[in-house]
Amino acid sequence: MRSYRLVGTCPDKVGIVARIAGFIAEQGGSIIGANQYEDTETRMFYMRYEVDAGSLDMDAEDFRAAFAPVARDLDMDWRLTESRRPQRVVLMVSKLDHCLADLLHLWRSGDIDFDPVCVISNHEDLRPLVEWHGVPYHCVQVPPDGEGKQAAFEETSRLIREAAPDTIVLARYMQILPPWLCAEYPNRIINIHHSFLPSFVGARPYHQAFQRGVKLTGATCHYVTEELDAGPIIEQDVIRIRHHDTVEDLVRLGKEVEKTVLARGLRYHLEDRVLVQGNKTVVFS
Amino acid sequence: MRSYRLVGTCPDKVGIVARIAGFIAEQGGSIIGANQYEDTETRMFYMRYEVDAGSLDMDAEDFRAAFAPVARDLDMDWRLTESRRPQRVVLMVSKLDHCLADLLHLWRSGDIDFDPVCVISNHEDLRPLVEWHGVPYHCVQVPPDGEGKQAAFEETSRLIREAAPDTIVLARYMQILPPWLCAEYPNRIINIHHSFLPSFVGARPYHQAFQRGVKLTGATCHYVTEELDAGPIIEQDVIRIRHHDTVEDLVRLGKEVEKTVLARGLRYHLEDRVLVQGNKTVVFS
Amino acid sequence: MRSYRLVGTCPDKVGIVARIAGFIAEQGGSIIGANQYEDTETRMFYMRYEVDAGSLDMDAEDFRAAFAPVARDLDMDWRLTESRRPQRVVLMVSKLDHCLADLLHLWRSGDIDFDPVCVISNHEDLRPLVEWHGVPYHCVQVPPDGEGKQAAFEETSRLIREAAPDTIVLARYMQILPPWLCAEYPNRIINIHHSFLPSFVGARPYHQAFQRGVKLTGATCHYVTEELDAGPIIEQDVIRIRHHDTVEDLVRLGKEVEKTVLARGLRYHLEDRVLVQGNKTVVFS
Amino acid sequence: MRSYRLVGTCPDKVGIVARIAGFIAEQGGSIIGANQYEDTETRMFYMRYEVDAGSLDMDAEDFRAAFAPVARDLDMDWRLTESRRPQRVVLMVSKLDHCLADLLHLWRSGDIDFDPVCVISNHEDLRPLVEWHGVPYHCVQVPPDGEGKQAAFEETSRLIREAAPDTIVLARYMQILPPWLCAEYPNRIINIHHSFLPSFVGARPYHQAFQRGVKLTGATCHYVTEELDAGPIIEQDVIRIRHHDTVEDLVRLGKEVEKTVLARGLRYHLEDRVLVQGNKTVVFS
Repeated sequence: MRSYRLVGTCPDKVGIVARIAGFIAEQGGSIIGANQYEDTETRMFYMRYEVDAGSLDMDAEDFRAAFAPVARDLDMDWRLTESRRPQRVVLMVSKLDHCLADLLHLWRSGDIDFDPVCVISNHEDLRPLVEWHGVPYHCVQVPPDGEGKQAAFEETSRLIREAAPDTIVLARYMQILPPWLCAEYPNRIINIHHSFLPSFVGARPYHQAFQRGVKLTGATCHYVTEELDAGPIIEQDVIRIRHHDTVEDLVRLGKEVEKTVLARGLRYHLEDRVLVQGNKTVVFS
Repeated sequence: MRSYRLVGTCPDKVGIVARIAGFIAEQGGSIIGANQYEDTETRMFYMRYEVDAGSLDMDAEDFRAAFAPVARDLDMDWRLTESRRPQRVVLMVSKLDHCLADLLHLWRSGDIDFDPVCVISNHEDLRPLVEWHGVPYHCVQVPPDGEGKQAAFEETSRLIREAAPDTIVLARYMQILPPWLCAEYPNRIINIHHSFLPSFVGARPYHQAFQRGVKLTGATCHYVTEELDAGPIIEQDVIRIRHHDTVEDLVRLGKEVEKTVLARGLRYHLEDRVLVQGNKTVVFS
Repeated sequence: MRSYRLVGTCPDKVGIVARIAGFIAEQGGSIIGANQYEDTETRMFYMRYEVDAGSLDMDAEDFRAAFAPVARDLDMDWRLTESRRPQRVVLMVSKLDHCLADLLHLWRSGDIDFDPVCVISNHEDLRPLVEWHGVPYHCVQVPPDGEGKQAAFEETSRLIREAAPDTIVLARYMQILPPWLCAEYPNRIINIHHSFLPSFVGARPYHQAFQRGVKLTGATCHYVTEELDAGPIIEQDVIRIRHHDTVEDLVRLGKEVEKTVLARGLRYHLEDRVLVQGNKTVVFS
Repeated sequence: MRSYRLVGTCPDKVGIVARIAGFIAEQGGSIIGANQYEDTETRMFYMRYEVDAGSLDMDAEDFRAAFAPVARDLDMDWRLTESRRPQRVVLMVSKLDHCLADLLHLWRSGDIDFDPVCVISNHEDLRPLVEWHGVPYHCVQVPPDGEGKQAAFEETSRLIREAAPDTIVLARYMQILPPWLCAEYPNRIINIHHSFLPSFVGARPYHQAFQRGVKLTGATCHYVTEELDAGPIIEQDVIRIRHHDTVEDLVRLGKEVEKTVLARGLRYHLEDRVLVQGNKTVVFS
């Protein structure tokens, strides 16, 4: 079913749902999914309405034009997206391909809906896999430091700009993006971190987890902000580990969680189910 | 926060949410929680609205009177409940007290809100525990069969009627209620079954699970209907078991899941989050 | 680390562990993993010893010859395998490729160790994927019934025999193998069933689960026996579903569990961690 | 079944299992459970053998005397305990009783085996509950600071000493024990911390979790050391939370995990399944 998704945030007050639902009903719109959340602490209102596109006499542009005055009245930060226009996604990866391979498989089998514009990597290793899927592959090697590194990220940035993505996914891209690059795509860069944040921020989280002797290891899907591993969390999960598990076992077990958590978080994001609320997220799952 | 919960089901059509939310807004009602579900297969609409009672000028009776014409228009099956009027609950139990003790503890600590009118058991064993909590205890022994059994259930039925419960909880009451008694309280009797239904219906499910060699054992909280262990499922969960676990271990591990699942399912029910849909449930958790 | 795995079952009695461990110590063997299980009900003993191959002066053949008299004394059913000789595995599949793609990816990335001799399918669909991985692909179409069907399974059987597999994996092969074919590979054919057995045996388990309104859906990895979906269970897991999930959602969510459960179960099997005990399994995980 | 548990750690070398199992066999001992773990990194060996006491001609004292020379040879740190001599346990608690009530219930119903010598609290609140269970209750109020605080902990220490416990359980005892008191009972004080450590160390972990916007909240059962919330972890688990959950919801959901994790961790400890390995634990579950 083709649908429109009306997603927005505004200060809470009496009558918002009536106003929104009233507007949709006036257009003859059939609601096929509705979520609201009233944050009683911040007095903010979050919503996601999914409307059967076939029940409306207008296209998305007209819908937007008609809704704009309502949104203005409500002081609402909003967007309207179309389910049939899959998001353009740039995937970034280093050498470990478990997340990338899983996303490409889910995409190809139709289990997750997006348009993989290209893959950018700092290594050549995964070119055959990606090109077999018919997806363009760009390799930009990132030198350890200095001018070369700056140049590499400028080239990366240029490639991203050309791809004009809605969303960028760091599917185990083992480089830290420079702040200026993060700042260009706020709440549009999604990272998978291989620990249960805020535990084990930074490098080698499985080694950290092994050292601490935790009994579960996890993964965290979050939006990238300028502060490392500190952005709004979209999704997390864990898996049980045992005393006889080595760091290598943790890595292996963790991969299972990483790919699941990233796929789940990305799906929420692509279906416009995630609204950022300060450094947290509202997820209408 | 004192609230009203408006819960209902009606045939789906354009404009229902607008109508409901519009009505609430007209009364000045501040919505603090809203859930809808549109079943595209059966074309039915399910909803739960929670409204800040302090934002309304009317009491529950007036609210009901005002809403009745709206509901009539929508052909809606509905109810309005008050968060501050906890449901009257009759708890039934045999000898195993893990579920009962957990519910009484949750009630006493304020973690789950209901009014435990009385406990009815077919044994005397749990009287001290129940009476320590200040809850009346009735023992009605149920003979294995025949007239005595019928009489016992009539006495049980009389005690229940006197207690005038909103909800009856079978917290490991090891007797099968007669159909006529089930029929008196449709969707108001909640049972905890000690397996992951529909696996292992009937007697001794842990023995059945042990024989089959499953790797997880579970528990199911469901509404009681005339057909044994076949009513609408409210909540389920499982716990991992290992080859070295004996039937006794399964019983012990299962208790942990049973009490959790029953408490969770009962909470959903008491907070009016469960709507029955044929032999299934909509749970606005 | 190269290792030998000594796996066996015998009637329980005093001194077995001493005998086994004594034998290993006499050869200078360094134990790197040891599991035992004494079933107090059947009075049977199950064991798995993993020995550092580098610590022994003998090769596997000599080890077997030396151990044979000990095993005879203990009336033990046993085998010795070498970690560095990965099992030969035939993968069978129909059209749904989530399990197959996951296994091939895990194999290629070294996360699970086996030798994928070939893939046999009753459709051509997955040939490109499989051949990209460099694995031979055989397509044997299976007519609905009658002589053609018999002939197809004879051809399938011939292909399997030629492949000389240690293990056959039905990675969503949507045909029921004939009993005579099952009987040729006892405890060596592994199936993934897309429900939490014994719930929803047979066809279309996700539809059955949807109809029953369960709150979790699952997957079961088990050895194939002549009775459909009734063989010894190796591994199971579940995932939570919600009232708004359609059958299609169940299928999608279920795929995530299916591939995880099959990969986990297959790993246990390939690492000689699974011992069949009647219609159950001992899993030294 | 009455059993002895032989638990120990020593440097790894060839022949340890043969030596231990050989010793047990010489006494005619029937092994009903055996776990070993060889840490390849530290080259240490950990073991737990459970022997049917009825199969031996000797009592525990004789067993210990006979085993001592073997242990000396192996340079083993060991102990032998008797399943029929439940550990003496002192329970400490403040006002929140969910963990305490659960443990007392499990104890009374025979689901966990220990001898609750007494409860020590810094408040009077839980006296009725504890005394109803027939367990002595001591209240030692702990002033915020200074000499009074020191005196309170000396009195607490005196009460503990009198109780002569094997194990002390901090079942939500909201005071930090002074280092000198921790040092008296190494690896014998068990705490339940209401977060998934190492996330949210210290005070008000649920508030910290709420602020960070995590999607799972957890609990950690660990041995108390002089460094706050940094001791060896015995057991952990998590529960899913949603954006609409308030801090109060987190507290409520967390209680469910806390009591489960503490009961599970304590059971492992009481059954001598936990061996401390530096700042980590080996858990033979």
